Amino acid sequence: MKIFLAQQNYHIGNFAANTARIIEAIGNARKAEAELVVFTELCICGYPPRDFLEFEDFIKQCEASVAEICRHATDIAVIVGSPVRNPVPEGKDLFNGAWFLYDGKVQSVVHKTLLPNYDVFDEYRYFEPAWQWEVIKFKGKTIALTICEDIWNLGNNPLYRICPMDQLMPQHPDLMINISASPFDYDHDEDRKEIVRLNVLKYGLPMLYCNAVGSQTEIVFDGGSLIYDRHGNLVKEMKYFEEDEALVDTDDLDNIEGSSGENSDTELSVMSTGINTEVREDHVLDKEMRVSKIADPSKIISYLTAPNNIRQIHDALVMGIRDYFRKMGFTRAILGSSGGIDSAVTLALACTALGTDKVRAILMPSPYSTSHSVSDAELLSKNLNNPYDIIAIRNIYESFLDTLQPVFNDLPFSIAEENIQSRTRGNLLMAIANKFGYILLNTSNKSELATGYGTLYGDMAGGLSVLGDLYKMQVYALAEYINRNAEIIPFHIITKAPSAELRPNQKDSDSLPDYSIMDKVLYQYIERRQGPKEIIAMGIEPELVNRVLKLVNTNEYKRNQFCPIIRVSAKAFGVGRRMPIVGKYLS
Amino acid sequence: MKIFLAQQNYHIGNFAANTARIIEAIGNARKAEAELVVFTELCICGYPPRDFLEFEDFIKQCEASVAEICRHATDIAVIVGSPVRNPVPEGKDLFNGAWFLYDGKVQSVVHKTLLPNYDVFDEYRYFEPAWQWEVIKFKGKTIALTICEDIWNLGNNPLYRICPMDQLMPQHPDLMINISASPFDYDHDEDRKEIVRLNVLKYGLPMLYCNAVGSQTEIVFDGGSLIYDRHGNLVKEMKYFEEDEALVDTDDLDNIEGSSGENSDTELSVMSTGINTEVREDHVLDKEMRVSKIADPSKIISYLTAPNNIRQIHDALVMGIRDYFRKMGFTRAILGSSGGIDSAVTLALACTALGTDKVRAILMPSPYSTSHSVSDAELLSKNLNNPYDIIAIRNIYESFLDTLQPVFNDLPFSIAEENIQSRTRGNLLMAIANKFGYILLNTSNKSELATGYGTLYGDMAGGLSVLGDLYKMQVYALAEYINRNAEIIPFHIITKAPSAELRPNQKDSDSLPDYSIMDKVLYQYIERRQGPKEIIAMGIEPELVNRVLKLVNTNEYKRNQFCPIIRVSAKAFGVGRRMPIVGKYLS
Repeated sequence: MKIFLAQQNYHIGNFAANTARIIEAIGNARKAEAELVVFTELCICGYPPRDFLEFEDFIKQCEASVAEICRHATDIAVIVGSPVRNPVPEGKDLFNGAWFLYDGKVQSVVHKTLLPNYDVFDEYRYFEPAWQWEVIKFKGKTIALTICEDIWNLGNNPLYRICPMDQLMPQHPDLMINISASPFDYDHDEDRKEIVRLNVLKYGLPMLYCNAVGSQTEIVFDGGSLIYDRHGNLVKEMKYFEEDEALVDTDDLDNIEGSSGENSDTELSVMSTGINTEVREDHVLDKEMRVSKIADPSKIISYLTAPNNIRQIHDALVMGIRDYFRKMGFTRAILGSSGGIDSAVTLALACTALGTDKVRAILMPSPYSTSHSVSDAELLSKNLNNPYDIIAIRNIYESFLDTLQPVFNDLPFSIAEENIQSRTRGNLLMAIANKFGYILLNTSNKSELATGYGTLYGDMAGGLSVLGDLYKMQVYALAEYINRNAEIIPFHIITKAPSAELRPNQKDSDSLPDYSIMDKVLYQYIERRQGPKEIIAMGIEPELVNRVLKLVNTNEYKRNQFCPIIRVSAKAFGVGRRMPIVGKYLS
Repeated sequence: MKIFLAQQNYHIGNFAANTARIIEAIGNARKAEAELVVFTELCICGYPPRDFLEFEDFIKQCEASVAEICRHATDIAVIVGSPVRNPVPEGKDLFNGAWFLYDGKVQSVVHKTLLPNYDVFDEYRYFEPAWQWEVIKFKGKTIALTICEDIWNLGNNPLYRICPMDQLMPQHPDLMINISASPFDYDHDEDRKEIVRLNVLKYGLPMLYCNAVGSQTEIVFDGGSLIYDRHGNLVKEMKYFEEDEALVDTDDLDNIEGSSGENSDTELSVMSTGINTEVREDHVLDKEMRVSKIADPSKIISYLTAPNNIRQIHDALVMGIRDYFRKMGFTRAILGSSGGIDSAVTLALACTALGTDKVRAILMPSPYSTSHSVSDAELLSKNLNNPYDIIAIRNIYESFLDTLQPVFNDLPFSIAEENIQSRTRGNLLMAIANKFGYILLNTSNKSELATGYGTLYGDMAGGLSVLGDLYKMQVYALAEYINRNAEIIPFHIITKAPSAELRPNQKDSDSLPDYSIMDKVLYQYIERRQGPKEIIAMGIEPELVNRVLKLVNTNEYKRNQFCPIIRVSAKAFGVGRRMPIVGKYLS
């Protein structure tokens, strides 16, 4: 049977656009003489739809879209993901469903069994898990159809008690199809291929794995759909961070005998990822894969900045920026360009994502700015060839000080005056954004956000955070990657000591430990959920550890007002990390 | 048996303070000659601990606290709530547990069965549901101990398949004890009493219901712990919005025969709430009680502003402000006082919560402010006797315009200039807050937040939103309530037409429909999850409905950066309402 995989980029709740996109791919599949075309999890409404699922009207629109697609599923079968109503009163109102359409009708629906409810996932908030399992019979083939997380329990994942494929095997399927909306993070990028391969080896069936692509606010879906033959050979790996289509004849997946022929290199590369069942044992003990894999403290920084991770992060961030703008209906970005590394990297990424003419940099020196702040930022924009303006903030700053004089009297310079400068910049950026219709890109990094080293409504302003899931050491590595072919980010921006320049001769190192040490502490605490004892046992000064953890916990209130962060790690600030604000733990 | 109920206010993660508070109450119970003292759900760590539960170190601190309390549970038995480790590999790592301590030892633990995972609740993210049920035997009594949601399925709640009390009844308990952390909202305030009473009537057993009190960032726990005899008579209703303690002899709960004697009035008042099993039927069909109860559109505004609701909202907001400050370690508040109704009500509530001398009002007229803006705000602060300053923003505003002149050139006045004024105020307030150690209180209301009628980093700035869960019509009703004994809020503030005063002669009604109509639309959409068709069917202009719903959906990005909102309704913006930002539904 010829099956067509459609790896597409959907827009949450944009039924007209999603349906049109799906119908277009059905046309392509028909042209390619496919008999079945496979889409991704909840493709009808986009994933994750969140609390829109609580609206009856929203569910009706899902159903109307499925009905419309049905009219195109005449001579060709179609599998789409969309919510399914729970027909019995017990349990939640909906299932997360896969609809099998053919002959202009809904032939059957499959319900998702394993509902992720960790990190960014909330599926138990909306869906009832499947309690019955049935294969799909089509043109003489028996298909075991599952949804995303359903294949992530091979019987040894302690999080789950049911293994949906085990339920389906007695019905003798010929083929496995899984439709997914599986997000990217650099910590787990190889796991997906390995899980698919382990399913193939366990059940001895070929597998078609169709994953969503595209960014939905903070969550990046990276595509990379997979086709494996029944022997565990990777037959097709679809594009990452791009839409893609593929056609496969299932006969080809059955006929290959124990060797993948021309794909043997690919197979070896899969085997060499080192994630085999034995190694995985440890990993499975990390229920829900909530925790990052690297435990050896001496390897943390080299892991975080590994070339393969940085390359993928780069591509994820470019897609994240591009999709946010497109889906919000904007084309142009603005940002404050300080001459520092964070704004330089953000600017370079934005130019790649949106086009250099669409990104306006604003240089806003204060009385405490060094001369190289402006000259470095100017050189950067000249290298990138993007528009920029220089707007000195001295007059506004002094106007604030004059106006506040009756209140502040002669109190000494403090954080208040520092923040006035930062918020004046935020106000200027937002004013230009409001005047001309830009979205303000935020340039804060994860190390700053973790420790609260930023000004609310000042440098923490913006509609989207580009670097908020990258530790400072990763921002440096990303700068080097951006410069891989030419010096786009001026060398001096990369080498100078980081500074907020909000008081004379200020350096980050006045307030914070060295980033190379601090990032290790932060990674152990945030990604690996280690406590102070374990982190101190790595050989880091107890005082430093306690100080950093206290900073993380006392600055939850700031992060709570921060914009969405493009998520690239196993644990990003934002929807995937839910902390009390009035808490008093390690603080 | 003499049982002591301790209705206390905990601080999330503050193990030292929580443990000390618990030990103090054990002392009080001992003095009162109680044999058992009952605390509330997750009292050891505070509720909700959220992702702190993913930290091994956090769980160890819970265990250490339980061990310490054990040393005080010698001659007196103690029931406390704290996480319990799941001993088997299957399922989540933790249970939500009730610990029964006596004779210096842990005698037994009970696991929560029904895990709420809707609105503000995420218990399925952390906990495994109970799979076995056992009563507690103590001093000849058999106790059926359950945790919060466990009593909210009387067998007819379709959300759940298990009814924990049904599981315990074959073990012949004499008494039900439920430990809760059940939040307040004005939509469900009577349900809790009714559910406890229905449990008593169904099982024919007395019930001791011990609920937490105190505010945790946005979630308000209102206390109101309950003691019912076996006939459904309310024997004791503990204080609302305050800590409280009570002693009961269980013999008294058994002996009363079908009448509560001196409590008969109370019983009648319980009966007269009108929430009987028949009426409840409809309500139970609303799974999870996610949806507000009032369906009749003509009754919405009178329901929202009903005196009993407004009185409770008042008390909840006062406690919400007070607890936020205390738990964050602050004592003093600042806010912008505009002469409008929202800032007036916020200021009055803050003065009640923190003391008039602890709340500083800043009056910041712009060139577009009317003269009564300042005079009304001054009169308000004179009535309240709180400190205030007048700081004109004209110079700073003009300095922004001068600085931006080369960029704006001669483009006409627009939203950009309006927002500069609002953000200048935000910057001034934050500067004074940073200089002197205030927390900035936000004054936005729910109608504004819903429609995006506010300026990010301007009037949307602040550490805590006091009125963000009150529709504009409720703010007016609350102002009247505040003035119930004297004119605290000047009459003119209540009667004048609302205006942002950011351009000449601006009125809210230039941009928004009448609040009396708009609030109905918002309530139907937000609290009741109605779609455009249903709302239009109420008799409201389709154009108006579509415009309002579009405003709600396109302003998710603004609310995403907003501060925590003290939650008083069945559906507040914030953690209980999770919407995609890049979504394109009804927009």
